[in-house]
Amino acid sequence: MNTFESSCEIGAGPRAAARVGSRVLRMRDFRWQGVPATEYKQAAEHHAGVTRMSLAGEGGESTAFHTRYFEIAPGGHSSFERHAHEHVVVVLRGRGSVRLGDAVHDVGFGDTVYVAPHEPHQFRNDGTEPFGFLCIVDAVRDRPVAVTET
Amino acid sequence: MNTFESSCEIGAGPRAAARVGSRVLRMRDFRWQGVPATEYKQAAEHHAGVTRMSLAGEGGESTAFHTRYFEIAPGGHSSFERHAHEHVVVVLRGRGSVRLGDAVHDVGFGDTVYVAPHEPHQFRNDGTEPFGFLCIVDAVRDRPVAVTET
Repeated sequence: MNTFESSCEIGAGPRAAARVGSRVLRMRDFRWQGVPATEYKQAAEHHAGVTRMSLAGEGGESTAFHTRYFEIAPGGHSSFERHAHEHVVVVLRGRGSVRLGDAVHDVGFGDTVYVAPHEPHQFRNDGTEPFGFLCIVDAVRDRPVAVTET
Repeated sequence: MNTFESSCEIGAGPRAAARVGSRVLRMRDFRWQGVPATEYKQAAEHHAGVTRMSLAGEGGESTAFHTRYFEIAPGGHSSFERHAHEHVVVVLRGRGSVRLGDAVHDVGFGDTVYVAPHEPHQFRNDGTEPFGFLCIVDAVRDRPVAVTET
């Protein structure tokens, strides 16, 4: 699970010493050796078909950021949400769409999305293949808030 | 150019307000719309054939990390160097190798490399196609030091 901090605490403090050595995580079919693929959040929340893998930053590293891979199954979507922390997303697999405020953008391999602070956003997979992307965030970050359509 | 800080200053301070809005950077043939591809460092240093593109973090965003794409031409290599800050690397294009201390690992698409603090490291492309990878680092970081073979 992620550890979220209150939005008053954004900004990393003194760097902790890394507790792990250098390593190579091998990927095969968009799964990484030794990295568990977990369902994202609780099923009751407003998302569907999202799998999360933690690639770096949450396993003893001391980076000021976390690198995760998310995969959205066909027909699935992430929560429509907002938060102060920013997202940097790089698409690795398939195609999907990202909503940024009122605009929707189709994206594919290599396309890079920056989600600015407080921007309501959602990722969707309306295709027939998995839609997978890296999502990099500050290690210390505020908790997302669900956005309700008006 | 990168801005490096002394190693005493690692750890991000209070977050600056982001000065840019959300955006999608489209990729085509491993080049991103509106992102210049620049030769990395000075030609006189101990590297060859390395191109750098800044995808997020150095253009008005306030993330505690910078997301860059590096591409090494066939026959090229990065500097053999060490530093306190960590690298998280995800291969996007082609194949190459990474030296981590005395070990050399061949890597390809999706393989993810964590370079621990002070680990001497070097990326090489001994193949015939470009070798490209994302490299994510803390926004505030120390300057690399060249490692000399003994």
